[in-house]
Order: sequence, then C-alpha cells, then structure tokens
Amino acid sequence: MDSVLQYIQDHKQDFIADLVELLRIPSISAQRDHAADCRRAALYLIDLFNQIGLTVELRETAGHPIVLAKYVNDERLPTILIYGHYDVQPVDPLDLWKTPPFEPRIEGETIYARGATDNKGQFLAHIKAVEALLKVQGEMPVNVTFLLEGEEECASGNLEKFIKENKDELRCDVVVVSDTSMFAEGMPSICYGLRGICTEEIRVEGPNQDLHSGIYGGAVPNPAEELCRIIAQLKDAEGRITIPGFYDDVVPMEEWEREAFAALPFDEKQFKKALDLNGSHGESGYSNLEQRWARPTLEINGIFGGYTGEGSKTVLPGWAGAKFSMRLVPNQTPETIDRLFQNYVQRIAAEYVKVSFKPSGGAKAVVVPRDALFMDEAVEAIKKGFGREPVFIREGGSIPIVITYQEELGANTLLIGLGQADDNAHAPNEKFSLRDFM
Amino acid sequence: MDSVLQYIQDHKQDFIADLVELLRIPSISAQRDHAADCRRAALYLIDLFNQIGLTVELRETAGHPIVLAKYVNDERLPTILIYGHYDVQPVDPLDLWKTPPFEPRIEGETIYARGATDNKGQFLAHIKAVEALLKVQGEMPVNVTFLLEGEEECASGNLEKFIKENKDELRCDVVVVSDTSMFAEGMPSICYGLRGICTEEIRVEGPNQDLHSGIYGGAVPNPAEELCRIIAQLKDAEGRITIPGFYDDVVPMEEWEREAFAALPFDEKQFKKALDLNGSHGESGYSNLEQRWARPTLEINGIFGGYTGEGSKTVLPGWAGAKFSMRLVPNQTPETIDRLFQNYVQRIAAEYVKVSFKPSGGAKAVVVPRDALFMDEAVEAIKKGFGREPVFIREGGSIPIVITYQEELGANTLLIGLGQADDNAHAPNEKFSLRDFM
Repeated sequence: MDSVLQYIQDHKQDFIADLVELLRIPSISAQRDHAADCRRAALYLIDLFNQIGLTVELRETAGHPIVLAKYVNDERLPTILIYGHYDVQPVDPLDLWKTPPFEPRIEGETIYARGATDNKGQFLAHIKAVEALLKVQGEMPVNVTFLLEGEEECASGNLEKFIKENKDELRCDVVVVSDTSMFAEGMPSICYGLRGICTEEIRVEGPNQDLHSGIYGGAVPNPAEELCRIIAQLKDAEGRITIPGFYDDVVPMEEWEREAFAALPFDEKQFKKALDLNGSHGESGYSNLEQRWARPTLEINGIFGGYTGEGSKTVLPGWAGAKFSMRLVPNQTPETIDRLFQNYVQRIAAEYVKVSFKPSGGAKAVVVPRDALFMDEAVEAIKKGFGREPVFIREGGSIPIVITYQEELGANTLLIGLGQADDNAHAPNEKFSLRDFM
Repeated sequence: MDSVLQYIQDHKQDFIADLVELLRIPSISAQRDHAADCRRAALYLIDLFNQIGLTVELRETAGHPIVLAKYVNDERLPTILIYGHYDVQPVDPLDLWKTPPFEPRIEGETIYARGATDNKGQFLAHIKAVEALLKVQGEMPVNVTFLLEGEEECASGNLEKFIKENKDELRCDVVVVSDTSMFAEGMPSICYGLRGICTEEIRVEGPNQDLHSGIYGGAVPNPAEELCRIIAQLKDAEGRITIPGFYDDVVPMEEWEREAFAALPFDEKQFKKALDLNGSHGESGYSNLEQRWARPTLEINGIFGGYTGEGSKTVLPGWAGAKFSMRLVPNQTPETIDRLFQNYVQRIAAEYVKVSFKPSGGAKAVVVPRDALFMDEAVEAIKKGFGREPVFIREGGSIPIVITYQEELGANTLLIGLGQADDNAHAPNEKFSLRDFM
C-alpha cells in the first residue's frame, strides 16, 4: 500500500490539474443552455477512464447521459459500485462569488469552484484511487463499477429507471457514495443512516369564495384559522407528534448510537447562537443530534392563504393551505405515514370546512448495519488515508437513490463524505479541501 | 309634496339622461391615467349644481378634487350635509362585463355601468331631490351642503384633512350618506350601526434564515408552526375571542335590536347554501345577523411563510406571518384592542420565537341612537318615497369617515342605502335600480 500512497503523492499536481479541467466545465444540469456542457463533462470523464484502462460507455437517457465505467478482474470477486454526479448547481447569485465559478482558484490547500465539493472533487478522488492502485499494482482484488450521472441536481429524473433496466450490469455487493460531509474538519466520517421523507400538502376550504371580513366576519368559518387549529393539534407540549400510530414502526436507537452521538464534539450553544435561537426546543428526551438524525419529524415547509401583499386587505379567505415534510426513520414507510396523517387531519378538522390532500411521494429511511459487508474495510481504509478512525454519524436529510440501490440491487451504501459542512455546496464560493482530496 | 313628486315623475327621462352622462365618465380614482376623468366627473357635477342654483366650488386636494356645493336659506335653519363620491372602482376583469362598463345599458328598470350603485346613482338621487324641491317650491326649510369626493375607492386619503381644515364651512346638524344597501329589494333600510376595525400584522421569527428541513428539522423551532399555535389560542370552542379584556368595553345589544333583527326576513339556510357552508359556526348565543352586525370579531385576512410555490420544497422557514382584522362594536377602541391583542400574543408565544407587530390603524364603531336628530324625519321621507316603513339594520363593515363626521363636526350620520346587496358593487356588471333611483 505504501507504494500506492507514494504514487498518489508523486502525482498530486497531475490529479489537481485533472480536477481543475473538470471544474472548468459549467455542467449545470438544470439549465437547458448548459446541456452541451453536461455532455462535455461526461466525455471528459470517459477520456479519464480510458486513460486508466477501464471499459467505459456513454449511456444515453431521456436527459443528460450517464457515464458507466467498469473494471472487472474476476466475476467471482466482490463488486464495488461507486456513484457520483458530474452535474452541478446553478451559480446564482453570481455577484457573491469572489472569482468566477468556473475558473477554479487554488488558495493554499483549498480549491474554489462550482462543483468542487458537490460532487466533482469527491468522485474524482475515487477515480484517482483506482488509477493509483492499477498503475502500481496492475490489478485490484475486487471489481469496480463507476456510475456517474448528470442529473442529481435536477432530481435524478432518469437514474432510477436506468438502474431498474440495467440491474444485471449494475449488480454489486456494496455501493460507495462520497457526496456528504465529514462531521468536522479532520474528522473522517461514515454516515450509516439517512432519514426518509413523506411530503404532503393540505388545502382547507371554507366559503366558496373570498368574502368581505366586515360583511361576513363572525358568521362564516375562516379556513386559515381552521388550518392553524389543525396544525396546532399535530404536536403535543413535549414536541411529540400526536398522529395516532405515527411512532408505531419506529425502531428505537441502539445504546451504542446514543453513546457515539454523545461523544461527538458538538457544541449546542454554538449551534443555537449561529441560528439566533433561544430556549430549548424539540422532542423531549432526545439530544439535538438525535432529534436531527434519528427521530422522525413533521415540519411545515410553507403556509399560505388570503391576502399576503403589502398593507392590509380585509378579506375573509375562501381557502388556506400548507405544505409539510415528515422525516422518517426505520421502519416507517411513507405510505403508512401519509395514510395516518390524512386520517388524523380529516378527523380533527371541523365539520364546517373541507380538507383535501396532495401528497407528493416520499422515500424510506436507511440505516446500514454496523456489521454490513465492507464496513470494517472502509474503517481500515479511512484509518490509512486520514490517519485516524472514522466517526459514525447519521444525517437528517434523505438521499432517495440509496433506497433504490438497496431495493433494486440489494446492496448497502457506504456514505463516506470527503467534504466539509462549510464547503458552500449549492452556494457561492463553493470549495473543497485538497488535503481531503488527496 | 305631491307637486314635487309630480315634477320628479315628469322629469324621469332627464334625470336618467344626466345619470347616463355621469356614468359615461371613467372616473377610476386608483388608476393614474384616469386622473383627468376624475376631474371631468367633478366638473360635470359642478355644472349640474350650477344649473339648479347652488353655490359650488371645485376644491383642490393633494389628490382628486372635492366638489363642495351649498344651498343656504337661513343660517339659523338646520343644515344637512350630503356626502357621496364620484370616483369608481377599477373594471377588471373586463371580459366578465356583458357590455362595456362605461357605456351605460338600460334593461327594463335597471341601469348597468361601473359606478351605477357605487356611488353615482345614489348621490345623484339626492341632487335631483334638491332640484325638484327648489324648482317646485323655490326654497327648502333647511340648508344643504353637498360634499362629493373623488377618492373613496382609493382610501379617501385627503378627505379627513379637508374636513378638519374646513370645519366651519362644513358645520352641519346631520350627515346623510347613501352608499350602503337595502336589507332586501323593496325593503328600504336605515343603517344605524357600523362596526369599527382594528388591523394588525404579526411576524413570528425562528432561526435567522431558512434551513434545510432534513438537516435541521426536529431541533429547531418552526415559526409557521408557532404562528399556528398562537392563532389556535385566539378563540375558544364557543367561538369567543380569548384575549383577556377583549369584551370589557362592549355595549350589549338592546332587546329591541335583537327583536328587530329576528323579525327581518333572513334565510340562514339560503345564506349557507350560497357559500357552500355546512354546520353551524360563530360565537354561540348569537344569531347570524347579530354575529355579523353587532358582535366583535377577529379574522385572519392572510397567512404566509416558507415555500408557497408549486410542488414541494423541504425548507424550514425562518419566519412566518399573518394579517388580522378585528371588527369592533361600541365602545371598543382600536387603540385598546390593539394593545390587548399585542399583550396576549406576546404572552402566549413560545420563548424560542420572536414576535413583532405591524398595526395599521383602525376606526371605532358607530351606532346612531334611534332618537337622534332627523331620524324620525328620515323615516317619514322613506315612507313617502317608497310607500313603506324602513327597517332598521346595522352593517358589519366599517366606514371610517362616519367617525370623522361625528368627531370633527359633531354630527350623526344617517345611512340610507338606495342600492341592493346584489348590485355588483366592485364587481363586473354593476347595476342600479331605476325604481330606487326615482
């Protein structure tokens, strides 16, 4: 392994040069006039894979193409699928960038550019690792598949279909994704859990039109008020969700997890100060990290109704609505949670309003067991590469594609974040640590 | 009086011709490019007053001019001030009008045009009454002042100042306003009460920015949720407002009023059917008309926060807000009610959110005593003109200028509506009954 690490050290400038080239390509997937740039990024990657001797193909989809590269040593050996995405977020607001987003700037050990951490820098580290292994050792003791898509930043619209249609070709024993963050700088992390999600929108209707609040007020139900009354009944004073059955399928946290979270260097005072928050909040009996990583939630994402412009307008609105997202944990399912939510809201709504629902889908939570295949190997690799044991963390967000890998390919995903939480993903002055890259 | 009525009968076509001319002028006060039309309407009225021998002046304001016409018989006689407004509402949506809004169309005994009922037709009836009296009898046993403004439909921005600055000139014993509706067709009405109003806007702030509902959800207060919790505590299960002291200054309804309201031909089933409402609603212990005319209310006029566009966005909003209007009855004052509202909301808000307020003023309620000066004369006049006794009603809306007349001129206002509730004021196909006009 030492000679492999030496190779990496010797080729630092080449690796960085390739990263810079890749970051120069404005592969913004959500913007139609950058479609050619997305294809150009894909072709650049095909060239890279060719250079290191992998079999590689550009696979068309209804949107931006997928790059599928394969290293097959022996069909009987285990296969690792490395997932990443070559598309990037839009760059607005452009005036907040210190230097242009597609002219990579290196300052000390940091590279600034759109896509640096999300996700070009992170997946390129894996490509370079494979290059080093193959150049130095001639072969690897596993098979490797790279699946790099170009639509992650615009909802991965075609990836699930591609996976379902190419299950045999994508068969693998484990998926590795580096598209998350370390818990803190210098603290390499394995994220073994993600929350699921279930989204809903409700619309409460009162009178069949907006009315004058003077002429009608007092004798007509106000749907905005009824909406608030419903929402106020969704949680109790302890911050627990009151929907009957909501927690029935929740797998309690294990003791080692609670201990591991408690051992992390998390400063709750600092967390609150950064957000200008006072007082305590959230489900009682759980720490801040537990609340965010391992407990289900119900949040209002938006609320609307009546007159929302400047000044006052004395209207009694005909309807009001709210959007919700519920974060799920194992073994909750979006289908069950959605049904429980709808039933409860219907039940507590006053007889004099009509409530309708507009669910927009969801995804289950994921927890990779601590003893999953390759978990120990990942820990060893991180120790070698970063000089210290990784911490085990969960994240509160959802990455639906991880569920697809589990359900369609039967493979767990190891989320090994190489980025930092303050890398400005999706924001101006996105950056990536070259130390982490190396 | 019979010869006066005969004169009116004989001049029906002339009166209608004048109304048509006035309705042809698109005096939309809220739209800058109709400023010249507003002035044209004022000048047309000056011409009318000149023709019947009143002293009339165009009085400039910071906005559209006021027409002030005077008939002075003897300073020692009582003076009646007749108020109206020559400006009209905008005409959107134009495509719902059967014929163009400023090309008056007469169908049977109904005239269709923007401004027909609100308010050109209604105040012109008074001008024509004065014309008939003066032409037939040569004089009137009272002094009459006409105050016709051009900014009622854009908040009467300059009228209060004008009244305050010209108190002597406007001194009167009673104000007459025909800018409301009859209770029902063929049922002439004197409106002796209007509710007051107090408007507020609250803003609830949680974290200092919008957050990702996955990464932060569960450990951070959601201001939209806190807003709902506050709103849900503003009324009890009986529909009573829970703000301490809210009802302290309320003068209870008198027994004769409750009996009079109960005797009106009001069909609550029809009311609900027209609005697609089910079940009972509102403050218990009060009838529908009592709830709308004589009880104070608290209504949400608008609610807003977070993501309100299409589909779902998993944001945990940094703030949420709502607009309220509270309708007041004697002797509540907007200042006290606003203070009570703010105190209560501050007190029930959770410690972990900040609440701020943006009041936008208000007006007290008005009730004209049954034995007020000229009330009996108004009843007699209505009996003569319409062939039946008027009913005494209140209205749920607010007309702040009525308070100004009371406070600045010391005069009560008789609200004698000549319009009908279904005249489409502020809506397409506005109309006015020529029978009521005559």
